[in-house]
Amino acid sequence: MSEYAGSFASPGVSVGKVEKLFARLAEPPGVLATECGAGLGPVTLAYETYGRLNADRSNAVLVCHALSGDSHLAGYYREDDPKPGWWDLMVGPGKGLDTERYFVVCANVLGGCMGSTGPGSENPATGRPFGATFPVLTIGDMVKAQKLLVEHLGIERLLAVVGGSMGGMQVLEWAVRYPEAVRGAVPLATTTKHSALAIAFNEVARQAIMTDPAWRGGDYSADEPPSHGLAVARMIGHITYLSDAAMRRKFDRRLQDRCEIGYTFEADFQVASYLRHQGQKFVERFDANSFLYLTKATDYFNLENAWGGGSLTAAFSRALARFLIVSYTSDWLYPTYQSKTMVQALKKAGKKVSFCEIEADFGHDAFLLPSERLTSLISGFLATLAREEA
Amino acid sequence: MSEYAGSFASPGVSVGKVEKLFARLAEPPGVLATECGAGLGPVTLAYETYGRLNADRSNAVLVCHALSGDSHLAGYYREDDPKPGWWDLMVGPGKGLDTERYFVVCANVLGGCMGSTGPGSENPATGRPFGATFPVLTIGDMVKAQKLLVEHLGIERLLAVVGGSMGGMQVLEWAVRYPEAVRGAVPLATTTKHSALAIAFNEVARQAIMTDPAWRGGDYSADEPPSHGLAVARMIGHITYLSDAAMRRKFDRRLQDRCEIGYTFEADFQVASYLRHQGQKFVERFDANSFLYLTKATDYFNLENAWGGGSLTAAFSRALARFLIVSYTSDWLYPTYQSKTMVQALKKAGKKVSFCEIEADFGHDAFLLPSERLTSLISGFLATLAREEA
Repeated sequence: MSEYAGSFASPGVSVGKVEKLFARLAEPPGVLATECGAGLGPVTLAYETYGRLNADRSNAVLVCHALSGDSHLAGYYREDDPKPGWWDLMVGPGKGLDTERYFVVCANVLGGCMGSTGPGSENPATGRPFGATFPVLTIGDMVKAQKLLVEHLGIERLLAVVGGSMGGMQVLEWAVRYPEAVRGAVPLATTTKHSALAIAFNEVARQAIMTDPAWRGGDYSADEPPSHGLAVARMIGHITYLSDAAMRRKFDRRLQDRCEIGYTFEADFQVASYLRHQGQKFVERFDANSFLYLTKATDYFNLENAWGGGSLTAAFSRALARFLIVSYTSDWLYPTYQSKTMVQALKKAGKKVSFCEIEADFGHDAFLLPSERLTSLISGFLATLAREEA
Repeated sequence: MSEYAGSFASPGVSVGKVEKLFARLAEPPGVLATECGAGLGPVTLAYETYGRLNADRSNAVLVCHALSGDSHLAGYYREDDPKPGWWDLMVGPGKGLDTERYFVVCANVLGGCMGSTGPGSENPATGRPFGATFPVLTIGDMVKAQKLLVEHLGIERLLAVVGGSMGGMQVLEWAVRYPEAVRGAVPLATTTKHSALAIAFNEVARQAIMTDPAWRGGDYSADEPPSHGLAVARMIGHITYLSDAAMRRKFDRRLQDRCEIGYTFEADFQVASYLRHQGQKFVERFDANSFLYLTKATDYFNLENAWGGGSLTAAFSRALARFLIVSYTSDWLYPTYQSKTMVQALKKAGKKVSFCEIEADFGHDAFLLPSERLTSLISGFLATLAREEA
């Protein structure tokens, strides 16, 4: 921090220059048709932009966020914000996504709870929140809404779509659903379909919420949400984002605030205390129904079934983008073998693909942590795409 | 099953020959002093025996069960029992623990809910169940109670102590706490101390129970237990007992009772349906407070701290037993590296140890599944011990 003494903000994305914008979006005749067959009538996406769109509109990069993310990528809204946006490490002047060169856009996903239409939004038909009557969404639905936003911004073709985890699924969907609109695809720490293990973790997390009596079949009030269930769900998720090695390094068996075990059911171990804290913090900022909808969308995601009749190679054959795929050695939620399956299918389909497995013992969360390797991979990839254009 | 047509029971341990016995046990002057400083006064252990104790009482094998186990090792109590005891594969005439040669004993652990004294037992001071006023137990406390039982049965020295997972921790504790009483120690799929990852999973499972409003600070009534929390806790546990590969083979992304995803929050995937079923089944047979106490005991277990001042070699130096240690390639709860740490410390301490890592993709639960390898390892190990005696 001392490097930037005199300014609490990260360099480049100035305070007050970032603001959350909203777009009302719909396909003709005024609704968004979801894959499950429902029509959501004009939807709102909350979004933010960084940098400037160039004259020929060729420098736009869309970033897709993961489960608990939002549109706030970088910088600070106000001077007293305790933390910058979630990918401040990567987004800003001179950073991996260089806002002096690229126009970076990030929108809260459809189904989310950070400004975009989701289960917590008012159902115009009833005047009350949708709750569990909100249509069950897919990654495809989220991407469809993002496409409307991109068009709304006057962009026909994205230089790249970038994202990790659930964001990476959106990247893959973009490249296959809208081939003409994506020149570069950067799926990080992700998969084309959840393993049984990943579904299992999501299912237990959802059960924690749905069996919390305060969930009330999804029809809870904002001041009495199913906090206990959501906290447990977040704790489960959090474990899957770390790794055995990362937890050992970070916590091992160290005790919290004491030298001896307490012989109680308090959180004596630091790791226990950390998880409880993460659960609590999450409850303050996230909606339980959104958690259900977003996790279900990731479980349903199946790129090869949706676009290739069961063949990933056939699905990827549709894509026109160049790919940069990154996995992490200690990611056991979406292990490297799943990224390698993508790489093989892309090669078979005759696509241009670079692949890098980054050595990191942080687990799945590694894509959110400082990494010179990732930064240089992404900036190099974008520079290549920009050169090709020129 | 057809092999044993005409008899629904497994061969050897005849129906009706198995019954649950109870022993009231205490140290002088009538209580069991627990490590946390409480006194539990005479405690009951529910136990079962298989085979016959020989004249010189040298053929007794104590089996220690895992978290959800009980004293019912093998055979059937009654003709209409749907399933035999939990280790019927291993215990019986001619099996790995050959009941024609050995006298096999298994007791429900102290703190359990299958007949032994636990948090669901009546507190004589109040006439009501202990609930959360039950003392927080350790693996050492469980083993201390088992030692009283073994003495009660007139056995001074056990041919072997055998167990997996939490049962394996008891085996290790036995060998170090009562060196003179253990000739052979067989810890399977276990560890001398939980990793941060293992503590994390236990903590989240406990939080699922303790934040269920029905838990009521541990003071719930038997007909209104915290079923939702306990079911979620069991689901979390169940995931950790399997492996990515085992889940893929068993479930992959197959759907339950339908060809298409349902766009609902029902359990469309088989793995989700399986987990919900496991959660429900567990609630019918297990006590939520026992789950809390037993998992906490495993988190606290730390053989090197308790007996070696932080050195595992020093702890193992106390042991007189010969060891057979078994781990499984796909066990990510207690990975092989933890067993190898034991082997190295035992060798450093000059102890006799055999080690086998069994190739199996079933995950942690592998020790409960049919394995000729494990059967022959155990029967060979016991035969060697018996020969040494002779």
